[in-house]
This record gives sequence, C-alpha cells and structure tokens, in this order.
Amino acid sequence: MDKIKRNERLSVIARLLTDTPNRIHTLGEFCELFGAAKSTVSEDVDLVAEALQHFGLGSVETVAGAAGGARFRPLVSHKQAAQTLEGLARRLCEPGRMLPGGFLYTSDVTSEPDTAQAIGEILARRYYERQPNLVLTMETKGIPIALMTARALNVPLVIARRDSRAYEGPAVKINYVGGGDRIETMALARRAVRPGQRALIVDDFMKGGGTLQGMVDMMREFQAEVIGVGVMIKTRVPEQKLIEGAHSLLILEKFDKERGAAVVRPAAEYAAQ
Amino acid sequence: MDKIKRNERLSVIARLLTDTPNRIHTLGEFCELFGAAKSTVSEDVDLVAEALQHFGLGSVETVAGAAGGARFRPLVSHKQAAQTLEGLARRLCEPGRMLPGGFLYTSDVTSEPDTAQAIGEILARRYYERQPNLVLTMETKGIPIALMTARALNVPLVIARRDSRAYEGPAVKINYVGGGDRIETMALARRAVRPGQRALIVDDFMKGGGTLQGMVDMMREFQAEVIGVGVMIKTRVPEQKLIEGAHSLLILEKFDKERGAAVVRPAAEYAAQ
Repeated sequence: MDKIKRNERLSVIARLLTDTPNRIHTLGEFCELFGAAKSTVSEDVDLVAEALQHFGLGSVETVAGAAGGARFRPLVSHKQAAQTLEGLARRLCEPGRMLPGGFLYTSDVTSEPDTAQAIGEILARRYYERQPNLVLTMETKGIPIALMTARALNVPLVIARRDSRAYEGPAVKINYVGGGDRIETMALARRAVRPGQRALIVDDFMKGGGTLQGMVDMMREFQAEVIGVGVMIKTRVPEQKLIEGAHSLLILEKFDKERGAAVVRPAAEYAAQ
Repeated sequence: MDKIKRNERLSVIARLLTDTPNRIHTLGEFCELFGAAKSTVSEDVDLVAEALQHFGLGSVETVAGAAGGARFRPLVSHKQAAQTLEGLARRLCEPGRMLPGGFLYTSDVTSEPDTAQAIGEILARRYYERQPNLVLTMETKGIPIALMTARALNVPLVIARRDSRAYEGPAVKINYVGGGDRIETMALARRAVRPGQRALIVDDFMKGGGTLQGMVDMMREFQAEVIGVGVMIKTRVPEQKLIEGAHSLLILEKFDKERGAAVVRPAAEYAAQ
C-alpha cells in the first residue's frame, strides 16, 4: 500500500470529525485507518483543529483518558449566530406569513435542512456543558430543528405525540394546557425515556408556553431531569409564559397589520454588535 | 495576513464541502476565503476529492459552467450500505419490538441522528440523477429520515399533516386509505409545493402502501411530479401494495411469535456479497 500523505489524512480526518459532531474518535481509529503512528495522527488532528478554529468553523478538542480521543463541536461564534438569526428574522418578516390566531408560518424555513441545522447548532452550543442524554420535542413542526440539535449534541431525539399511535407501543399520556387554554393530550412511548436521563426540550414556537410545560411534566412522569428548554422563536406577548427560563433565539414582537407582516428580531443576546 | 498553507486549506475545504451535501461551492468562494489563486484552489479541491474517494467517504465532483464549482455527495458504497442495513436489520430483530396490528417499534432507531443520516444518504443516492426539488413525507415517524434524505439532496422537506393545524394557513385536504382500510385525511399547506416541482416521497414504513399512495395523490393535486418513492422498511405481506415501484431498504419478513421478535433483512439489492 502506498504511504498515505498528510494532505490526504487531513481531508479524511476533517470529514470524519465534522460529520459526527460531539462524538469522540479515538486516535487509534485514525492510526488503523491510515497505518500511521499515534504521534503522526495526533499532529494531524492538531492541524485540522487549528484550521477550523482559524476560519471559525468549529472546535476540535482532544479529550484525555481511557475513552479519550478527538471530538468536533460546531461551536457557532456570536457573530455567525447573529448573522444567521438576522437573516432568519428578515425572512420571517416577509408579508404573508401572518396566520389567524397570532401564529406565524415558519414551516418552509424550519424544514430546510441547512436552516434547521444552523438553528440546531446555535441551540446546541448552550447545552454541551450540561450533557443532555436526549432531545425531546412535540410533533410536528419542531422536529427538524430538534433533530439537528440532537445531531449537534450526538444524542437521540424523542418525539412526543398528540395521540399514542398503535405503532409506538405502551405510552404515558398526560394532559396539558394548549393554545386558547384548551386541554390537550400528549403521549410518549413508555420505552422512549429511562429514569435519570437528562432531557433538553426543543420546540419551534412558544406563545403561552403550555406545550413546553407539558413536556416538562412529561419528563417528570419518566423521572427524567430537564436540563434546558430552547425554542426558535417566542412571542413577546403574553410576557408571562406558563414556563420560565426557556431560551429563545428569536422574538416575535408583534404583527404589523398594516404591512401584513410580522415583526421578528433576534433575541437580545444574539443582537449584532 | 499569514499565507494560508495547503494543510489548512484542505481541512477547511473538506469541512465546507462535506457539511453541505449537493451544494455547489464556486472556486471563487474558496479563492476569496484563502486569498489564493484559482489554480491553487482547484488543486486543493482535487486533493480533497482523491482523499475522500480513496477512503470511500463520498464523492467531490467539479461542475463546469457559469454556475460551476465543486460539489460533495455522500455516495454510500454498496458495501457500506450493506453493512449499515445489516446492522439496522439486526437491531430491528431484537425481541420486544413487535406491536399489535403487525407494526414494529422503530422510533428509537430512526430518531438517532446518525442512523437517520445514514438511511437518508443511502436513500438519496438513488435519486440524485432525477433531481428532485423537494422531499415529501407524512408526519410523524418518517420525518427524521426524510429530513436527512433532503439534507443529502440539498432540497427542502415538506411535511403532510394528519389535520391542517391553524398555523399552517390554507391547506389542501385529501382522503386516503389508511391502515385497516380506514379512510383517513391528509392535509398539506397550500404554499408548500408549487406546480411543476419534482417530489421525492420518503417514509419510514410501508405495509399496505395507502399513506404513500395518498402522498402521490396529494402531489397530483399540487400538479407536482413524483420522481420516486423510498421507504426504510416494507412488510413482505401483503405482497400487493396500493402503490407500485416503491423502493425499500429493508424487508420485514414476518413476526416470529415464538421468539417474540420480527424477522427483518436488507432488501435483495443491498444484500452483502
């Protein structure tokens, strides 16, 4: 076999690390792949880390210990997050997105894989240190961003349902306060969450906060801990939400009825500097 | 500014290309990023392409013309696809996944971001040449794999709903034959699809094929063309599906009631050689 050159190794290491965010790859894995010494591969990883760092493309860290190795996290910079959210806010301010009942049409935006991924990576950044074991969302619109948040964190996604369908098996059902103070039902497969797991709750939209509070209650039924609640967009009104401390990337200030469009802006901490 | 070394450029190019499957990056984009000549960047792209090719990590192609540049596709090899699907089949054969009504519990598997991505990339491979403009799925369980298929193809995901929720705006509703020959309703936001678009339909599970046929009918209502139908798993029985020509990665042969487990295997074309 030809000796594999550094050029080649770097492309491959960059590809493998960045395609699997937050997963630890042992140096041994790369040594075997390239037939190279550990010291060589270790230098390679450092070079990839420096290059990505230099261009603001995320962080490669070396993790020490028996389960050690190298790990990529798409740590989006403040500037990049601000740019992404500015662009997103601009799109959500387009006329024609206002829907009856104070809702905003966002499905086209959140179902673009690259947009969902960008949102997921911004959300994930806040929660790496809290080490969630899973991301929980409620069907349907939040699933793309929740899945991409889970991807960035390298944890499974768990999806609560409006009803427990036959093909999910035994389920826990709870009631929660939905839009317009209606009592709604949420179901989650019994086997989806184990006691003691750490859940990050993610959804696309928060108005009253009832659905998010329902998910918090659901996690209590499973004896799981909620380590954070993140949403893409929350409404300014009502200011008092049913759930406290949820983190939102965007704020829906109001509907400008004359212009027939929403007024959306990035949350204060993501404002351009 | 220090001159940016080839090492550094390769890591960055590998990261940028592989993170955005099927999107064309112009060479000018890289020239600007690195302050390098087109000939240099072009060589860089070739080196990344060779490295990924060599290790079976996907294909970087150069696209000529005014909108030309370099494009990455995660073209999963037959061997890799066979391995992935073997592993998946093994997991789905675990006892305890049988549910009443001939259903199989698969949500835990399909909601793992890396598994969903692997399935999406295997599915996408068949359809690059047919150039879909969108991926259509029906809520809920198929969304993760459909989103990852859409990511690999660089097209938006469109999600049909069981009911048209207020926050989706005006919707088209159709009836279709669901499980147990029940008539069910499917709704899709009016603005989600434009006439003439080319849809790839993706779902997780096909038994009778009614839901898939419903999605085909829905696309007809939108005057969109269906360029393919792909599912993760289909049941052997009934052999006659309501829809013809759907492509499935896995076959659910039967439920082994004694063992309390399903018998699942990769579809013939993905069998290990």
